[in-house]
Amino acid sequence: MMKVPKKVLSALRDEESFLVAAHINPDGDAIGSAVALCLALESAGKKAVAYSRDPVPSHYTFLPGQEKILSGLEDALKDDPVLVLVDCNSPGRAGIRDLHFRRSIVMDHHATESDFGDLRWIDRSAAACGMMVYEVLKSLGIEITKAIATNLYAAIAVDTGTFRYSNTTAGVLRTGAELIDLGAQPALIAERLYETWSMKRFRIFMMSLNTLEIKDDVAMTHVSETMFRKTGAGAEDTENFANLPRSIESVKVAAVFREVGRGAWKVSLRSKGEVDVSKVAERFGGGGHRNAAGCRIEADLKSAKKALVGAIRRSHGR
Amino acid sequence: MMKVPKKVLSALRDEESFLVAAHINPDGDAIGSAVALCLALESAGKKAVAYSRDPVPSHYTFLPGQEKILSGLEDALKDDPVLVLVDCNSPGRAGIRDLHFRRSIVMDHHATESDFGDLRWIDRSAAACGMMVYEVLKSLGIEITKAIATNLYAAIAVDTGTFRYSNTTAGVLRTGAELIDLGAQPALIAERLYETWSMKRFRIFMMSLNTLEIKDDVAMTHVSETMFRKTGAGAEDTENFANLPRSIESVKVAAVFREVGRGAWKVSLRSKGEVDVSKVAERFGGGGHRNAAGCRIEADLKSAKKALVGAIRRSHGR
Repeated sequence: MMKVPKKVLSALRDEESFLVAAHINPDGDAIGSAVALCLALESAGKKAVAYSRDPVPSHYTFLPGQEKILSGLEDALKDDPVLVLVDCNSPGRAGIRDLHFRRSIVMDHHATESDFGDLRWIDRSAAACGMMVYEVLKSLGIEITKAIATNLYAAIAVDTGTFRYSNTTAGVLRTGAELIDLGAQPALIAERLYETWSMKRFRIFMMSLNTLEIKDDVAMTHVSETMFRKTGAGAEDTENFANLPRSIESVKVAAVFREVGRGAWKVSLRSKGEVDVSKVAERFGGGGHRNAAGCRIEADLKSAKKALVGAIRRSHGR
Repeated sequence: MMKVPKKVLSALRDEESFLVAAHINPDGDAIGSAVALCLALESAGKKAVAYSRDPVPSHYTFLPGQEKILSGLEDALKDDPVLVLVDCNSPGRAGIRDLHFRRSIVMDHHATESDFGDLRWIDRSAAACGMMVYEVLKSLGIEITKAIATNLYAAIAVDTGTFRYSNTTAGVLRTGAELIDLGAQPALIAERLYETWSMKRFRIFMMSLNTLEIKDDVAMTHVSETMFRKTGAGAEDTENFANLPRSIESVKVAAVFREVGRGAWKVSLRSKGEVDVSKVAERFGGGGHRNAAGCRIEADLKSAKKALVGAIRRSHGR
């Protein structure tokens, strides 16, 4: 059971003006958490603005209240707000490195090295920052409207793969159930998150799947500049392209090679279970997490693939 | 709140021998429901065997207890069992048309025309037959073991798209939470359900995607007998092939045409939101749920597609 630190609750109760900041390249958990917290603080009679340095990706623009997220800081700062970082724990991650705030609160579920924040609540066991914001709102006794419930449900859905990842617990499902009771529409949210592929995205996905090559337990596909030209798709359309090849039973690592200029490839790596692709990416100067990492390889495609398979072999002592 | 009819409970309590039959081409809900019910009845000291005319698809073979499902009826019939149909409501759907049972129970959540069954419990509002079996076991006071919880969680996961379809309710998530408390492992189940594609399944999926044709807001793909021959895949490998085409933003209905003999097609229909494909399937003598239905069309592929698009148009008054 999550317990919100009393000092965090008092600060949210006593202060009058807040700037709630999401991390750069915000995902659904960052956006949903920031918007939900702002809507709740506003309903409690406070001034609260949400800030995101980077634009809200199009598949999150259905979230009610996201349209009020600021991308510039001037307006956000004029009421001398308390900074609240959600889903991140350092100003750098939020893209607001050089500013001073009279007070700051951190709410995050990421492992962290930073010690930023006057008041810090880091709970690595939380499946999503949205779970933490939900506890805050319940503890503060703020009414959770349908709009707030929708943002929190989406936040939790995104960070748990809609209840498929290993952070899915009974508590996560119970919170989901409560948010549905409060007005969140699970099928609508899932549809907006997962079923709004543009035709150009679908076409370039098909083209990339048709390039599938499997060596050992590594599935490799690529996306060439020609494919981008033919379909009109952009790099952002290729997010998660490794997921389907990774679904093949014999596959442990799925790699998508995206052409970024003559003889250069951005490689997106996804792995199953214990296979650590961050180690593999580091061999090429990249990095990431155990099951999701990335790097850049400068070589023709054939050599790049060979280098990758070799690195995976060495990295796993085969 | 689901209420199990008292007569169904008494029959399960009073009788001593059961044959629990899943429908032909069984999906995860049919298999999980049948196995869970058998395991529970056995633990209550009864004789209970599960029957499936068709083999258990490979992505369900992780379910504990599924290995005891019988595919022949001789052994199943020797203790003069009561028939229990799960996830279907007529002997024909279970592939046991010409047999006589002294007593029969039906537990299903499909809309139905059949009036088969001495005791019938049809609850169209249930997201999965697994939800109904769970209520039965709770009402009977049978201990729900980890194996039973795993089967029921998988049954519910399959029929709700792991909590993404419109049948996902707060009650569904609460049941999921309870089953996790009882030992079901959500991430493991999701990985086994979605990330264990055989190479032949992947190959025939690619072949079918390459046949994509979009008319109005209907995405159509097909799987031919030639494709089955070339890949070695079977009908059971084509489950959920409509999901990816349905993910295209402009698409409201995705249809997969599977060849079942010269000039005959089994059509699997998946729709978004309010579009009711069960009505469309009924026009061809099929049926199902609002967002997932199926039917058979006897015609060459071009005519079959045309007939389907016409039926969808008429069904939605366009």
